[in-house]
Amino acid sequence: MKTTQASIITIGDELLIGQVIDTNSAWMAQQLNKAGIQVSRRVAVGDTWDDIWSALNEESAHNDIILITGGLGPTADDITKPLLCKYFDGHMIIDEGALKNVTTIFEKLKRPMIPRNLKQAEVPDTCTVIQNHNGTAPGMWFEKAGKIFVSMPGVPHEMKGMMQHDVIPGLTRHFSFPTIIHRTLLTFGVGESFLADLISDFETALPTNIKLAYLPNYGMVRLRLTSIGFNSGEIEREVDRLFSQLQSLVQEHLVTNEDETLRQVVSKLLISKNKTVSTAESCTGGYLAHLLTEEAGASAYFSGSIVSYSYQAKEALLQVDKLVLESKGAVSEEVVRQMAEGALKNIGTDYTIAVSGVMGPGGGLPDKPVGTVWIAVGNLQKIESKQFQFRFDRQRNIHLTATSALNMLRQFILRDDESSGKKSINWK
Amino acid sequence: MKTTQASIITIGDELLIGQVIDTNSAWMAQQLNKAGIQVSRRVAVGDTWDDIWSALNEESAHNDIILITGGLGPTADDITKPLLCKYFDGHMIIDEGALKNVTTIFEKLKRPMIPRNLKQAEVPDTCTVIQNHNGTAPGMWFEKAGKIFVSMPGVPHEMKGMMQHDVIPGLTRHFSFPTIIHRTLLTFGVGESFLADLISDFETALPTNIKLAYLPNYGMVRLRLTSIGFNSGEIEREVDRLFSQLQSLVQEHLVTNEDETLRQVVSKLLISKNKTVSTAESCTGGYLAHLLTEEAGASAYFSGSIVSYSYQAKEALLQVDKLVLESKGAVSEEVVRQMAEGALKNIGTDYTIAVSGVMGPGGGLPDKPVGTVWIAVGNLQKIESKQFQFRFDRQRNIHLTATSALNMLRQFILRDDESSGKKSINWK
Repeated sequence: MKTTQASIITIGDELLIGQVIDTNSAWMAQQLNKAGIQVSRRVAVGDTWDDIWSALNEESAHNDIILITGGLGPTADDITKPLLCKYFDGHMIIDEGALKNVTTIFEKLKRPMIPRNLKQAEVPDTCTVIQNHNGTAPGMWFEKAGKIFVSMPGVPHEMKGMMQHDVIPGLTRHFSFPTIIHRTLLTFGVGESFLADLISDFETALPTNIKLAYLPNYGMVRLRLTSIGFNSGEIEREVDRLFSQLQSLVQEHLVTNEDETLRQVVSKLLISKNKTVSTAESCTGGYLAHLLTEEAGASAYFSGSIVSYSYQAKEALLQVDKLVLESKGAVSEEVVRQMAEGALKNIGTDYTIAVSGVMGPGGGLPDKPVGTVWIAVGNLQKIESKQFQFRFDRQRNIHLTATSALNMLRQFILRDDESSGKKSINWK
Repeated sequence: MKTTQASIITIGDELLIGQVIDTNSAWMAQQLNKAGIQVSRRVAVGDTWDDIWSALNEESAHNDIILITGGLGPTADDITKPLLCKYFDGHMIIDEGALKNVTTIFEKLKRPMIPRNLKQAEVPDTCTVIQNHNGTAPGMWFEKAGKIFVSMPGVPHEMKGMMQHDVIPGLTRHFSFPTIIHRTLLTFGVGESFLADLISDFETALPTNIKLAYLPNYGMVRLRLTSIGFNSGEIEREVDRLFSQLQSLVQEHLVTNEDETLRQVVSKLLISKNKTVSTAESCTGGYLAHLLTEEAGASAYFSGSIVSYSYQAKEALLQVDKLVLESKGAVSEEVVRQMAEGALKNIGTDYTIAVSGVMGPGGGLPDKPVGTVWIAVGNLQKIESKQFQFRFDRQRNIHLTATSALNMLRQFILRDDESSGKKSINWK
């Protein structure tokens, strides 16, 4: 089925020398997808006249919607606006709305306005201006030969505001898009090939309008079914039926059948049981606590964390036994269990997670090579501990330690729940 | 000057629906740049035959080097390898080296090998195989009409291994590249427009072969001078002379004249003075500790952190006065100073950083709206505190709080140093 699709063009030398990671495109693609708009190409080019010009030509040959970010900042390395003015046969004029916006922002900030800031209110007269509610550079909507071109600033929250308030509503008024339905589940602890083998019959039998994708990430694999069509009721019924089958096939490894992260699963679990958690971290250095507090509302289930990086901190803050530290080493079952006990006692939460390991690149020992990690999870009644062996670089080892620890806690809580269920039966 | 440039093509539906952020391209661009290879275009396309085919055609019309990542995984949604086989007029054969590699990996993992894994050893007979030292999928090097095409897996550490060991050395043997020289400095606390105004005469007078870029990020702006040429001695002298001028112009706001992060500046400063730091965190929830431990060797200057998210944790772990908490609230000068004192006492470091604030989206009060943050830094002799008002989303507020806190610590250490220098003069 040929549908109206979009290209995203990001402009900026910083993207081509790798000084900046492009997170805008991923966010834009997500939002467009929800609105039924498929992105078929993303292109990054530098702040170079010819490269931007040819990207506009090429992308409009591929697609009907061309969304552009970047190149609109107040500094002189930006050439995008004059180029757009020429590309769309316009003359530069001052937009009164944009001028008022720039003036108001500088008044609020109590900063003096310089000519460079005033220039931000200039736009080609061939565009419809999209006001920027989060910054000074206005967005620009152009139409040419049945194609829509939208230029937005590269600053994430400025672009996001425009996409949500103006661009997506404008596009859905202008075109008619099919329904895109995704169904996503998350598995933990099994590889991509193993999963593929487990569901190969299912995959072979999939109808052509439904796609299956494997998205591996830090010990987890996300499986996604995607269906596209104009009869939304019909495609939804079909994809839901297949999604149920898929869930049964991977049941044993299933973490969630929603498009959510492991952290979100764990925090929802804690909230639903009205329980709190703390962390006692060595090798993850606060990353687990950061993960647990990244989203608003964390105070409902997270109380605090003790990051004990040094031996001394482990003794002082978590009462880990000095003799045990010296005889067994910081990366040991005994120490990680004492860390968990210390956190439960000192922070006073229902559950805790403790981790200690060698993240690399240095610090490995013959019996504890880089990637050796001990994790303990538990409550005041019971602590469970387990050794892991990761084999990646420091950053990846930190992430894998954190996700493995969250998954251990998830399993502990679910089992804890079952066993207290059994207990209540025994009480009869 | 027209030089040999590269295009990067990333393949995968997950990039076009925004489920995954592309970090590979940035890393690749960095490495290529160091080797004198400029990337002029980056393109992402989905797992679709026609889109991949036309990307190969278009990118080879633009550039002589086309680097491809993704689409080589063991699962059935991958179509890249058969497409490359056809594009380069080959037949699929089993590569003995790749087969041995796959077999060895599965033996090591003690996992059974399934036919799907064996297929990974298949390659078109028109390519030179690049062995994968970090995974099962081999890389492929093709030459066609004077252009080089290299296909690599999308798994970051697999791609990185191939780039470093084979691809970049191979490209530099095949072509002759100019020298690219970057000089980068970092400023804190001033906006892009303000800086642009401050250095506008300098910028206007820059020779045409030297480019200046502004890279704003979380309260900081990085300024980068780039020079390209075949006479490396000459361009280096020229860019160094201009870079000195630039440093003088922004002296007041300068954090570092090297291409390093604020965190790296702070950790180098601590190491050079043989001092340690701890953190007492509320609103950043462990993010500051995570930043300080992200790189290897952190134990030289970081001892630990207390993340006190709840009132109770602030009292129990940092001895914050309950009455002060109740009368002034957690986001107050008094509390953040007591947090700093508690951390210094309990963790026993030379310096500490304490932060407490409202990160949003909820939790704002009339007198403490979202974005209100108190930061304290200091040592046992002196604690300095300061209020900040950020106005962004939760994630951005967390990052800004962390960078502002690191910068406050940096300034404190530098001043601390000066004053102890003066003291030693007084002792004479």
